[in-house]
Amino acid sequence: SDLIRATLFPGDGIGPEIASSSKRYQFMSLPIGFLSESYPSLPIGFLSESYPIFSAADVPIEWEEHFVGTEVDPRTQSFVTWESLESVRRNKVGLKGPMATPIGKGHRSLNLTLRKELNLFANVRPCYSLPGYKTRYDDVNLITIRENTEGEYSGLEHQVVRGVVESLKIITRQASLRVAEYAFYYAKAHGRERVSAIHKANIMQKTDGLFLKCCREVAEKYPEITYEEVVIDNCCMMLVKNPALFDVLVMPNLYGDIISDLCAGLIGGLGLTPSRLDLLIPLAFIHSLNIGEGGIALAEAVHGSAPDIAGKNLANPTALLLSGVSMLRHLELHDKADRIQDAVLKTIAEGKYRTADLGGSSKTSEFTKAIIGHL
Amino acid sequence: SDLIRATLFPGDGIGPEIASSSKRYQFMSLPIGFLSESYPSLPIGFLSESYPIFSAADVPIEWEEHFVGTEVDPRTQSFVTWESLESVRRNKVGLKGPMATPIGKGHRSLNLTLRKELNLFANVRPCYSLPGYKTRYDDVNLITIRENTEGEYSGLEHQVVRGVVESLKIITRQASLRVAEYAFYYAKAHGRERVSAIHKANIMQKTDGLFLKCCREVAEKYPEITYEEVVIDNCCMMLVKNPALFDVLVMPNLYGDIISDLCAGLIGGLGLTPSRLDLLIPLAFIHSLNIGEGGIALAEAVHGSAPDIAGKNLANPTALLLSGVSMLRHLELHDKADRIQDAVLKTIAEGKYRTADLGGSSKTSEFTKAIIGHL
Ligand SMILES: CC(C)[C@H](C(=O)O)[C@@H](O)C(=O)O
Ligand SMILES: CC(C)[C@H](C(=O)O)[C@@H](O)C(=O)O
Repeated sequence: SDLIRATLFPGDGIGPEIASSSKRYQFMSLPIGFLSESYPSLPIGFLSESYPIFSAADVPIEWEEHFVGTEVDPRTQSFVTWESLESVRRNKVGLKGPMATPIGKGHRSLNLTLRKELNLFANVRPCYSLPGYKTRYDDVNLITIRENTEGEYSGLEHQVVRGVVESLKIITRQASLRVAEYAFYYAKAHGRERVSAIHKANIMQKTDGLFLKCCREVAEKYPEITYEEVVIDNCCMMLVKNPALFDVLVMPNLYGDIISDLCAGLIGGLGLTPSRLDLLIPLAFIHSLNIGEGGIALAEAVHGSAPDIAGKNLANPTALLLSGVSMLRHLELHDKADRIQDAVLKTIAEGKYRTADLGGSSKTSEFTKAIIGHL
Repeated sequence: SDLIRATLFPGDGIGPEIASSSKRYQFMSLPIGFLSESYPSLPIGFLSESYPIFSAADVPIEWEEHFVGTEVDPRTQSFVTWESLESVRRNKVGLKGPMATPIGKGHRSLNLTLRKELNLFANVRPCYSLPGYKTRYDDVNLITIRENTEGEYSGLEHQVVRGVVESLKIITRQASLRVAEYAFYYAKAHGRERVSAIHKANIMQKTDGLFLKCCREVAEKYPEITYEEVVIDNCCMMLVKNPALFDVLVMPNLYGDIISDLCAGLIGGLGLTPSRLDLLIPLAFIHSLNIGEGGIALAEAVHGSAPDIAGKNLANPTALLLSGVSMLRHLELHDKADRIQDAVLKTIAEGKYRTADLGGSSKTSEFTKAIIGHL
């Protein structure tokens, strides 16, 4: 078979809806009527199983669905099932909706479990301005690549004496080389011209210094790509002044956490609402690709599971759809990726069908239908 | 005498020019002719000495000038003279132009010397949009307050084994309480309504957790001020979407370094130049007030000493002038501060006289004259 099997975690809350939308739009030749309203009780697995039948839709993916378990799996110490991890390890690619970690003690966060168990060492976040969606910036087109396993996230902290505490930031040659290799590989594979390593080595000479040393070593193997080093404070100042200066950014864990969210803010709408919480919701476009050892790639929507609107046909599937696009690019299916991405962007740019979070009044299904119309 | 003595470090490069401009505009009753072109060889001390004569200019400051030494002072291990430190300790207030640390081994950076010797524990940076100066944001009005002595800047780093290095981040109760106290004191003194503590305590539970605990303790003493805690990644996303959401921000050292420069970028012009270096130059407005033990306050222009344009009557004195304004506010001379700040802002807003860095063609002296005209 020339189908590529991929793991799908529909996730919680609005996850299943947007995942089904994501699967649906890959059935490009389906009659428009084949939408969730018409099949409200369609088992979520059905579409994927029927995929080959509708193979005129030429994205050659066969989804293997996995849900979060209803109790803690002792092998993963979390609600993530061992089988689902095995599925990702076997398929090497996966797509993941928002997962809300159930409250309670004695188990690990779902996202953390995936990160650790699959050794997801690089978090790749494409950030580009959406045509027709007004923000303060209309020229963003950059990729942040975050080291995702060490640095400030070591978890090593202790009290030295009362009132004096310390945290350890760990940087290793192995993890730094690995993420640097991926950044340059990615830049080359995607026709990007510049890689900027972000650091504070003027202060943390040993840790960030080692990170830079590794980036430099890898840079030498890619003479066609411009390499530069930018101090994190300068980087943030430059980003908010002129994000078009950047292309691919690679950095240690915490800087990646900060800068990838800063960049999300650049494209994520004006945020003119006075509510501080609302401001975090319009992550409608933001998605990441997590790269793990052994060539694993797990694409994910960054937003939360929005339980308040779950099941109401109101969720915006864009981030999950664009995650799917990232996954297709990872599989080097650029034509398919372009086709889907164009249809999504066109629909948003036209502005006729937008979900509520983008200021429109369309249902998930109407928005999806509009996208299918553009395919 | 009812004059307040203040230390003045004109600094290097363009420092003396902009410092003299700063002093000059405090001679509000001086005839316009009394400008540097007319007195090109005026010793820089002259104006300050003649201050009392022109006391119609009612900013009651008497400057005590100190220059960076020509050799390393063994008592400071740097080119900063012991006398100048004594001057700040005695006067409690000072104003500082850009200082370039001479290259060479065996001595400390000038800025670091001041920071350490004067125990400058808080760095306060006002960031507000300049009326009439076009940027992407026109509604910025916030204050970042950065802990300036510990955190990620401990300098404690070591190699664990080959390829594995670590840096220590140190947070103490003493330094956290001290900066939190200052933040709330500042907020109250300046009629600010909200203090946001910025952190990553979801990851660094002990260090950032202690920082937050200290902020909470202080917050309880200020029930009239709204207190909130914002995770640094969310904070950056919110800042670039809607900076008007923030008022006073207080945070550990590295977050302060990052966020204060991000905020500088918000007000610092469009940065549409393709040069990455130019982008860092328009720090024309950015200034800080450094607060030290014993009530010391040292105001400073954040930009560099720009040796390429030094002595050419081209430098923009705005940042140093506004530093002076911060210093006056610290001295609770708000009327004087308002008067000077209004004159500077009006001159920039009118746009007729602007220095080259702001897109104009005025000389330092013309710009200064225009400001005096507005006093
Ligand atoms: C929730 C938090 C621990 C997490 C992180 O800091 O990694 C989040 O900000 C992210 O970026 O995935
Ligand atoms: C030059 C650098 C060490 C310094 C710092 O990080 O403190 C600078 O960025 C600052 O903000 O004063």
